Amino acid sequence: MKKRIRLIISYDGTAYHGWQYQEGVNTVEGVLRRAVSEATGGETEIIGASRTDAGVHALGNVAVFDTNSPIPPDKMFMVLNKLLPDDISIISSDEVPLDWHPRKLGCRKTYEYHIYMSGVRIPVRRLYAHHTYHELDVDEMDRAAGFFTGEHDFTAFCAAGSQAVTFTRTIYACSVRRAGDEVIISVTGSGFLYNMVRIIAGTLMEVGLGRKKADDIPAIIDSLERRNAGPTLPPEGLFLIGYEYEG
Amino acid sequence: MKKRIRLIISYDGTAYHGWQYQEGVNTVEGVLRRAVSEATGGETEIIGASRTDAGVHALGNVAVFDTNSPIPPDKMFMVLNKLLPDDISIISSDEVPLDWHPRKLGCRKTYEYHIYMSGVRIPVRRLYAHHTYHELDVDEMDRAAGFFTGEHDFTAFCAAGSQAVTFTRTIYACSVRRAGDEVIISVTGSGFLYNMVRIIAGTLMEVGLGRKKADDIPAIIDSLERRNAGPTLPPEGLFLIGYEYEG
Repeated sequence: MKKRIRLIISYDGTAYHGWQYQEGVNTVEGVLRRAVSEATGGETEIIGASRTDAGVHALGNVAVFDTNSPIPPDKMFMVLNKLLPDDISIISSDEVPLDWHPRKLGCRKTYEYHIYMSGVRIPVRRLYAHHTYHELDVDEMDRAAGFFTGEHDFTAFCAAGSQAVTFTRTIYACSVRRAGDEVIISVTGSGFLYNMVRIIAGTLMEVGLGRKKADDIPAIIDSLERRNAGPTLPPEGLFLIGYEYEG
Repeated sequence: MKKRIRLIISYDGTAYHGWQYQEGVNTVEGVLRRAVSEATGGETEIIGASRTDAGVHALGNVAVFDTNSPIPPDKMFMVLNKLLPDDISIISSDEVPLDWHPRKLGCRKTYEYHIYMSGVRIPVRRLYAHHTYHELDVDEMDRAAGFFTGEHDFTAFCAAGSQAVTFTRTIYACSVRRAGDEVIISVTGSGFLYNMVRIIAGTLMEVGLGRKKADDIPAIIDSLERRNAGPTLPPEGLFLIGYEYEG
């Protein structure tokens, strides 16, 4: 009997050219596909929720695959973890209906972007946070973040080369908080355009630096011009935190 | 005029076979020596404070070298940082007397050992903390830690192969605290035997797991038998925090 297995996947994106399978390139999906094939004894397609970019990390990406394997669905993650490298870990596995899709309508995903403020570069933090020498104005950043919530045309926050059909997305929550010397930008949305979270983070960082004001955000969104938003921050500060599904 | 320059050095030990220079091996001292040689235009010997082991991290190791370079001592760190890879960063530089030695009498050094408690392995944390699936008893660990303070013969906490002449060391402070899901063991001492901090951490972890009691520590120290102490925990959880010097 064919079953659909859902996996929650955590990985360190440092060594990978992103999630998506590409022949001859080290990708998370590629490594996972080999492990699933070895565990289940058959080639199978994997459907991932989020195609994270090169260097981006995930605490809870989601993927499914179909199999006739006798391995109990809720034990599958343990079998896979024995076959996976240290920088990919399956958090859990379960059976879902055969028509369940990880990018199905109504799902919400949350990303965090981490920036650390320090007078010196700290090597042990370089892989998991973006560094700034400056003290950012976190309150003003949080106020600016509020303007991103709601349904907007996010053309100004989309990198060139996007294959999106529509640039309208809904952001359910966007906030900025401080934890020690770290500034954490949190964004929950229905979906995101290419590099959208990293451009939002770059724009909020400009607010934190005093180069833009919180009140500038609505006009930047309305302009639909990429050049009015801030820079795309580097991938190492970005974490896909996880998905929520309706029901 | 020959000057002695002191450096405070922070590094990610992941890629290095430890601090100490070895021909043909990637070590922190080796990489630093090349950078100093390039910056000052001459070969020079570097004297490091702590010869950290392979995989161990440092936030504030200390080293000195002598040079006739016209680069101002307090600007030297900026010149070196341009020549160093991302995983090594010089925090500061200054001039010290020509007879100043980074391992001089009366210095105190502090190490931390980080353990994270989680029902699942989290890949983005694997390089900077040791993982346990278990909930550790942090209060009991902290009580156990107190028994390490003072002057003791630490033969039971020294790995085989040590070239130490005497096994007596003074520990000024040893404590265990919790930060979120992380347990942080902090030890300040006059100096440490080979693997001593990682064996203390392994012993305290056994206390946290309930396999040993806090009150067992004095007898373990007194036994002078390595087999009575806990295991040597892996290097990735260990951070050399820094040095304090008298005066």
